[in-house]
Amino acid sequence: MEHHIRYDAAQRALILLDQRLLPTRQEDFVCRTTEDIVTALQVMVVRGAPAIGVTAAWGCVLAAYEAAEAGDHWHPVLDGLLERIAAARPTAVNLRWAVDRMRKVLKTAGHAPFATLVSLWESEARRIHRDDIEINRAMGRHGAALIDEGDTVMTHCNAGALATAGYGTALGVIRGAVDAGKKISVIANETRPFLQGARLTAYELHEDHIPVTVACDNACGHLMRKGMVQKVVVGADRIAANGDAANKIGTYSVALLAREHGVPFYVAAPLSTIDRNTPDGDHIPIEDRTPREVTHVGDTQITPDGVPVYNFAFDVTPAALIAGIVTEVGVLRPPYAESIAEAFRKAGLE
Amino acid sequence: MEHHIRYDAAQRALILLDQRLLPTRQEDFVCRTTEDIVTALQVMVVRGAPAIGVTAAWGCVLAAYEAAEAGDHWHPVLDGLLERIAAARPTAVNLRWAVDRMRKVLKTAGHAPFATLVSLWESEARRIHRDDIEINRAMGRHGAALIDEGDTVMTHCNAGALATAGYGTALGVIRGAVDAGKKISVIANETRPFLQGARLTAYELHEDHIPVTVACDNACGHLMRKGMVQKVVVGADRIAANGDAANKIGTYSVALLAREHGVPFYVAAPLSTIDRNTPDGDHIPIEDRTPREVTHVGDTQITPDGVPVYNFAFDVTPAALIAGIVTEVGVLRPPYAESIAEAFRKAGLE
Repeated sequence: MEHHIRYDAAQRALILLDQRLLPTRQEDFVCRTTEDIVTALQVMVVRGAPAIGVTAAWGCVLAAYEAAEAGDHWHPVLDGLLERIAAARPTAVNLRWAVDRMRKVLKTAGHAPFATLVSLWESEARRIHRDDIEINRAMGRHGAALIDEGDTVMTHCNAGALATAGYGTALGVIRGAVDAGKKISVIANETRPFLQGARLTAYELHEDHIPVTVACDNACGHLMRKGMVQKVVVGADRIAANGDAANKIGTYSVALLAREHGVPFYVAAPLSTIDRNTPDGDHIPIEDRTPREVTHVGDTQITPDGVPVYNFAFDVTPAALIAGIVTEVGVLRPPYAESIAEAFRKAGLE
Repeated sequence: MEHHIRYDAAQRALILLDQRLLPTRQEDFVCRTTEDIVTALQVMVVRGAPAIGVTAAWGCVLAAYEAAEAGDHWHPVLDGLLERIAAARPTAVNLRWAVDRMRKVLKTAGHAPFATLVSLWESEARRIHRDDIEINRAMGRHGAALIDEGDTVMTHCNAGALATAGYGTALGVIRGAVDAGKKISVIANETRPFLQGARLTAYELHEDHIPVTVACDNACGHLMRKGMVQKVVVGADRIAANGDAANKIGTYSVALLAREHGVPFYVAAPLSTIDRNTPDGDHIPIEDRTPREVTHVGDTQITPDGVPVYNFAFDVTPAALIAGIVTEVGVLRPPYAESIAEAFRKAGLE
């Protein structure tokens, strides 16, 4: 599952496993242009904040080749293409973070010839890609200590290998606990409307022989009341400076139920998901997606013609409901304003 | 929508609108035998506690004709058929309530000839059927006072005309408010796995020109945080003597979110849904249904082969989260042990 995002230098293409077709079909989606990248992000061939960041980094490389066709004017053309990538989706901060890292290389390279720039960019994208896997493994090691032998861990959406370059954030914590020899099982909330839990989390845990059961999002309260959940671990698309976390729609309900039932609720995310320029959850833009994700499942129409729907892709879980944020530099604890600032200092990101 | 359950005396058949096919197809499902009735209940051609009760009452009539074929031994054969109907589904108490009402007529009729019994039973089933509509209209009148001009009312599952003989319980309250001249709108939670909200609630409100928007169950928290919900009204499948209410899976999450956001949460149900022999929610049996409702939507498979699923059909909302229970004799308020006992006295059901 570490090869669902593959850059093919010879072909100048980014090859993505098309996650829309899982779990029943495994097909690639080949990106050769900026527009392909933007489409792949928007229709969710690839999704998950860290995977979006990695895809965007490789997308910048494709954008550079595309801009080169403009000859001497490649610089402003490239600027436009990068902005197109950075604006493809609004909530995950990793998208802009990755494009900004590439821009920094461009700035440092100054007036280097085009070939040098592309070579520097390929290296930077590869670094972002590899770092993401290493960061997830570090999160897995830190987070493993939070999970006890015999636990059933609930997760919402897919914050797994498929949502990252590999290993996963929330599922990285679960894999970390399994790698540490703990016998645990997982409940994957199906995660309407896009069903990332049913389709993707169940798929990748089942492939890894980690016991997983799928439940409708509606079952969460009943499962907690019956004592069938010991921990919750989810990913995040953006974490504000105060610890409020935007994640897949429905996460907030899970967090509230967890508090009601004394179940610790953890968020696992790399520091690149923490946006210190966003003061709190109210300042995180929430993407409003196409009605069709709600009105249809596959070819089956489930709402009557003419009835409108809401399709907010994310919600915000207030920091007060989060027992800890698992990052690559350790588990942050409340108050998050302080622990986040301290983590950034520690990581030399000040 | 008051004709989705029709008894055809000439044909000796109960004709049900097949709710599995809504909202895209309107087809009847014809029951001629006890086994047809049991199937219709179990696969959810018809569902919703009051509609289950009405269907069961008519099912008893069909069972009588079936038993008559056993000649002199019709009595024990009928007993067996009635028990088969009463046990078709475990959670909705209206099912056994309706069969018990028919049994009482049988007992009172004593050794009346078969033709007399059938005639008495047809009258009793017709009474249960008509009473249900009247009871819902009474609930609508009482409940209308709880809804304010301009409110957006959230509902979960379908507690509408299609869940009753007509008019609805929760949707009866909404119709009551509309009939009282209030301009309101409705958010229908889609209600996975069977999607009664998306398919049925949206369908019947849209037909009645009551503004309705469908949202995934996951959106509930976000919608409440954004102040987009002023009231919640749901139905119930069984209410315990202390006011704990079993309703469609996911209702408990909605109730908890409502409390967190200061949104009044009401249950609308006839007294026949209140089971004074069930002391509290922990004693309500929760039906565990076929995995296929979770693993597939239409023909689309959404979970990987070999991954188990949970499919609990109901959950329990603790009485403490319920602001009021709307019944045909008025709105009951906490403490429910007392207000329920008082309502039964008032209705002469003591």
